[in-house]
Amino acid sequence: MAKRLLDAGHMLKVYNRSRAPVEELVKQGARAASSPKDAAEGSEYTILMLPDSGDVWNVALGEEGVVKGAAPGSIVIDMSTISPLTERRIAEELAKRGVKYLDAPVTGGTIGAEKGTLVIMVGGDYEAFNAAYDVLRVLGQKVVYMGASGSGQLTKLSNQISVALSLLGSCEALLFASKAGLDLGKVIEVIASGAGSSWQLANLGPKIVERDFRPGFKAEHLSKDLRITLEVAQELSLPLPGTALLHQLFKAVVARGDGVLGTQVLSKILEDLARHDLSKTLSGAEKS
Amino acid sequence: MAKRLLDAGHMLKVYNRSRAPVEELVKQGARAASSPKDAAEGSEYTILMLPDSGDVWNVALGEEGVVKGAAPGSIVIDMSTISPLTERRIAEELAKRGVKYLDAPVTGGTIGAEKGTLVIMVGGDYEAFNAAYDVLRVLGQKVVYMGASGSGQLTKLSNQISVALSLLGSCEALLFASKAGLDLGKVIEVIASGAGSSWQLANLGPKIVERDFRPGFKAEHLSKDLRITLEVAQELSLPLPGTALLHQLFKAVVARGDGVLGTQVLSKILEDLARHDLSKTLSGAEKS
Repeated sequence: MAKRLLDAGHMLKVYNRSRAPVEELVKQGARAASSPKDAAEGSEYTILMLPDSGDVWNVALGEEGVVKGAAPGSIVIDMSTISPLTERRIAEELAKRGVKYLDAPVTGGTIGAEKGTLVIMVGGDYEAFNAAYDVLRVLGQKVVYMGASGSGQLTKLSNQISVALSLLGSCEALLFASKAGLDLGKVIEVIASGAGSSWQLANLGPKIVERDFRPGFKAEHLSKDLRITLEVAQELSLPLPGTALLHQLFKAVVARGDGVLGTQVLSKILEDLARHDLSKTLSGAEKS
Repeated sequence: MAKRLLDAGHMLKVYNRSRAPVEELVKQGARAASSPKDAAEGSEYTILMLPDSGDVWNVALGEEGVVKGAAPGSIVIDMSTISPLTERRIAEELAKRGVKYLDAPVTGGTIGAEKGTLVIMVGGDYEAFNAAYDVLRVLGQKVVYMGASGSGQLTKLSNQISVALSLLGSCEALLFASKAGLDLGKVIEVIASGAGSSWQLANLGPKIVERDFRPGFKAEHLSKDLRITLEVAQELSLPLPGTALLHQLFKAVVARGDGVLGTQVLSKILEDLARHDLSKTLSGAEKS
């Protein structure tokens, strides 16, 4: 994402806890900042991308945080996926100093970030959204204003509900088909052409069959997103039986030590439950 | 489907318990049969389309059943969605008389049936599949051989697992978004453009928002399909936690008296649990 901004002609100051990515970007024309505060100083836009709510809180509002450097009238944009409640509190704190804050999480994964094909869901002040639009369009092909502060995160969490449940549908469909002795390539072909089709099945189904668990999106990140979703649902007194089941299953993925693998590793939890290794399916085999 | 076969130049004898559809087809050139036996007599192919396993068993093997009329060498094709175990038993019974039997369930709904765009998943004798291929291609745009008797049904059941779970994902995502006060049209647009996209969300999501519960595919039929899926999974000693949850939720749909509505009525069960009517969402409203 930083590379795309450099390529588009923006001047960047960059900060990261580990140094290697910073040095890589400095080679390409960015300046290294010594702290989040330093990165925000003199910047029109300050963009954050961090793992979880506490990280964003600290980087935005901590000792050497963005709040100490950002000028009144500048815009801070958080592109992490974190709690919408945290976003609202940070927005309120920054507003006290005249700094605008947008929550702008993304979907589309590492490939989308490199190619600029991300979808960006934005919450916060509408004028700030308009001011930041051109910068965000460098990073995403679709930049949608969703409403007041936190609305970007709420939209992202809705998206993750659909991601998680259609992934479980893909895993259970393939496991059932494997145990029944069907040719999994044909099964994916048939399901993908009708009412059972999903992005998850089309993109991760073949990886599950090929036992390719390298991460496009890490299981531990989806687990975190589902946790936040259920925290918000708890505040809204909203029962979500499917999402709750998925959170439990992803906690099992993480407990298994597979959190750093791709979300498709969910299949292994179900295969474990069934004591059935899906890779044992013979292509075109007879049913058991 | 019968109309498409007539239009393709096939001679048809038709039987149905209620008379109106038969008379409609007779007007278009079909002959009325007095029983399944009569329909099968002198026919090269006998096609069944019935609600559940018991119906197919009776029509195939009962007193006035297909078995009493079908000539050795003729092919019986069951296009219902029923138990793969029943299909295998019927195939065995018919084989004793030299009659070939294919299980050939479909996806694509009423519209697919009218337009000939169904996907047809076929199990049974491969030679019989080849012999019946041209007839099936009149009814479906994709006709796939899946393996031995029962394999068509097993593929269809895999498909229904994916259908049901991606539908739940769509319902929970929209309910969460509604309760959070987001604009549901925008939420569908955003989710449909990324990793959370599914046929269910794109096609049934807008219907849920518009409170259009007219059936494309009836909830009671999906409930039946999930029951059969879990019966087969039971035989295979296969735990399917997501599919089991969906079956319970669809039993609640049927208990509520909504089985004759479209599967998207699943949303109402979740709205009931949450005591939140999704139609109360104001477009573009602030979060609660």
